[in-house]
Amino acid sequence: MPAPALRIALLGCGVVGTQVARLLREQAEDLAARVGAPLELTGIAVRDVTAPRDGVDPALLTTDADSLVEQADIVVEVIGGLEPARTLLLRAIAAGASVVTANKALLAADGPTLYAAADAAGVDVYFEAAVAGAIPIVRPVRESLAGDRVQRIVGIVNGTTNYVLDQMATGGLDLAAAVRQAQELGYAEADPTADVEGFDAAAKAAILASLAFHIRVPLEDVHREGITAVTADDVAWAASTGHVVKLLAIAERTDDGVSVRVHPALVPVEHPLAGVRGAFNAVFVQAESAGELMFYGRGAGGTPTASAVLGDVVSAARNRVLGGRGPVESSYADLPVLPASAALTRYSVRIDVVDRPGVLAQVAAALADHGVSIEAVRQSQAAGGATTSGVAHLIITTHSATDAALAATVQAVAELDAVLAVRSVLRVEGS
Amino acid sequence: MPAPALRIALLGCGVVGTQVARLLREQAEDLAARVGAPLELTGIAVRDVTAPRDGVDPALLTTDADSLVEQADIVVEVIGGLEPARTLLLRAIAAGASVVTANKALLAADGPTLYAAADAAGVDVYFEAAVAGAIPIVRPVRESLAGDRVQRIVGIVNGTTNYVLDQMATGGLDLAAAVRQAQELGYAEADPTADVEGFDAAAKAAILASLAFHIRVPLEDVHREGITAVTADDVAWAASTGHVVKLLAIAERTDDGVSVRVHPALVPVEHPLAGVRGAFNAVFVQAESAGELMFYGRGAGGTPTASAVLGDVVSAARNRVLGGRGPVESSYADLPVLPASAALTRYSVRIDVVDRPGVLAQVAAALADHGVSIEAVRQSQAAGGATTSGVAHLIITTHSATDAALAATVQAVAELDAVLAVRSVLRVEGS
Repeated sequence: MPAPALRIALLGCGVVGTQVARLLREQAEDLAARVGAPLELTGIAVRDVTAPRDGVDPALLTTDADSLVEQADIVVEVIGGLEPARTLLLRAIAAGASVVTANKALLAADGPTLYAAADAAGVDVYFEAAVAGAIPIVRPVRESLAGDRVQRIVGIVNGTTNYVLDQMATGGLDLAAAVRQAQELGYAEADPTADVEGFDAAAKAAILASLAFHIRVPLEDVHREGITAVTADDVAWAASTGHVVKLLAIAERTDDGVSVRVHPALVPVEHPLAGVRGAFNAVFVQAESAGELMFYGRGAGGTPTASAVLGDVVSAARNRVLGGRGPVESSYADLPVLPASAALTRYSVRIDVVDRPGVLAQVAAALADHGVSIEAVRQSQAAGGATTSGVAHLIITTHSATDAALAATVQAVAELDAVLAVRSVLRVEGS
Repeated sequence: MPAPALRIALLGCGVVGTQVARLLREQAEDLAARVGAPLELTGIAVRDVTAPRDGVDPALLTTDADSLVEQADIVVEVIGGLEPARTLLLRAIAAGASVVTANKALLAADGPTLYAAADAAGVDVYFEAAVAGAIPIVRPVRESLAGDRVQRIVGIVNGTTNYVLDQMATGGLDLAAAVRQAQELGYAEADPTADVEGFDAAAKAAILASLAFHIRVPLEDVHREGITAVTADDVAWAASTGHVVKLLAIAERTDDGVSVRVHPALVPVEHPLAGVRGAFNAVFVQAESAGELMFYGRGAGGTPTASAVLGDVVSAARNRVLGGRGPVESSYADLPVLPASAALTRYSVRIDVVDRPGVLAQVAAALADHGVSIEAVRQSQAAGGATTSGVAHLIITTHSATDAALAATVQAVAELDAVLAVRSVLRVEGS
């Protein structure tokens, strides 16, 4: 007998909510297989049911959030802000629902109230999406590092300011111009205060510090400096000394206690955080046993944030279905494992040829005959600088080809009179 | 009434096992607070109880692994290899214990047997430490991305080969010399076959592919090429075209199925994986909704691996104590949140001074008076190239100082006659 469906109530239908609704619909089959029961979206609470929403079934919309949360197994909150989010989540918990929220402001201001209510009711609170969007950072700190002692967390957790500082560094813009550009591209809000003054990052720092150090961190104890004092001149000087300016959220354990702060800082270009560009986020964690860890990915956006929300929904749902067990492995998918010869890869083929006109054409023809297309050819000196007279060195980079096609091609190339040696055949990844 | 202790049985007491035993002892109080019940190490199964083991209570050692696993709530297996690990874990599961294992070889060869047994018995199998050591990658793929569709995983999951390739690139060594160096430093085994031929990476690729795509991946379906064919010449040529050679584990979903493979590949230097040096590991994940994610950290070593094992122990223990709920937040720690003025940071102070002898000494004296010590002073042209005659630009980098000391120092410096302007005061992090 299949398990009964779990009722999911969605609060809010903005950029993230729309994507949560879409993914619940489009991935229904996969999600049911992973949870062990279907997930049924029973309704979406909004303020105005008549506002147009792309791809959302209008029959799901309701303004009666109270009734919705009282008849749900899992309540997903993506409204943001303190109220009515807090009241609705507490009502959901009291009614026995587990809750998933992306609401950093609420968690930073009043998380312990939610946690205590959930603890008393024996339900879950998950909130991966509240810090650093799609990047799994809450779960690793809460669970993977639960047997370790976190010493320090340093994160780039606000994509807007990271984009702005990036534009100041690479485009030479001043702060105001960079903020305007971010607004035009949709990376910054019309009122950018929450981002540029560091309020958003401070909320995330408070949440991370409370998870990492198992303490309550009142938001007013987070030292907060935004990027408004950073000048184009600062950024240029930083570059001249091998640094970049980043807005960092820092939670640090010292002998005396815990320091939680958000401020701009110079980061050496060789540090992993220095390379985090544009709207990306990254969080660096130092733990006593694990050592240095870094987590990197998209820190915002409707679809990435919805991915984190759905991961939490699956966890909360599994807890309800499995009762006291972690994730269960199953191989439900019907996907064959392909033979190696079918893998499509780009290749870099390095050959020595006789240095005379027409040889490249011959080689190119051999590749074309086997359906392997050339992306680039470089003719070059030997790496060591030593050249042998009459010998040319070619590096041919191919477009994607199968292993099988490439093997046949290399064989044919090797047999050409003008080819002296095939020096190496290496795959190319990551470009 | 406090919850009864959970009985932990440890199988194996090598590099990882010793650290697991130590951490269970040293962090007993923290772990009990996080789980909600004490964790009691009831015994450590070894082949020879007389072998000396640093810091391990000899009274815990036993050769009777069978009895040990049958009287445990959680069995931790760090023996490695197929047998007797498989038989002992199946026996533990049959007796109702949850299991935590770091055994990649066993999971790649016969994971589904373990998973099915655990499913039937209603217990957990956790194995974060089996892939990429301390890096949380199993939990993110199994849980955080459970609401997403993974498209591709590309990882550097073998620290030995990464170190060897790194030495070939930076030290100009050939493969044999680099392997010998890795052996001398303890990064490679006396018989390096499992690493350099890609067997270790292939097992991890199979595990990651099975988690990401919800399929069974027989080890023999993983295409495997080690690094033995990579020459010093290849590495030098790669560098000359802006690439590094890395041994990659790849699991990729295509229209036709799933490709799982391990082989060396050229990676562009600007790709995040290119910067992963030495014994570090990193795993790049691309998912439909989350986009690009990267996880970075220590891929091996007793203590980092023990951190991952203990995280799993806490998860399995919480499942037993909480029954059907995820992690519970509590702020049990007695750590004050420090005021901002107490935070210790390095600073970069940029000032314009009158360009005459003795000024630097005056500035240095002002810092010394306030107990702020100077790490470096640079005198430089203005960033834009424009210079004002009679004005010198100083960048002073301090050693760690408190906010409060720094503020007082800057005030004193600004008041010096020879100081024309304090241009900026920025913190320095990450060095």
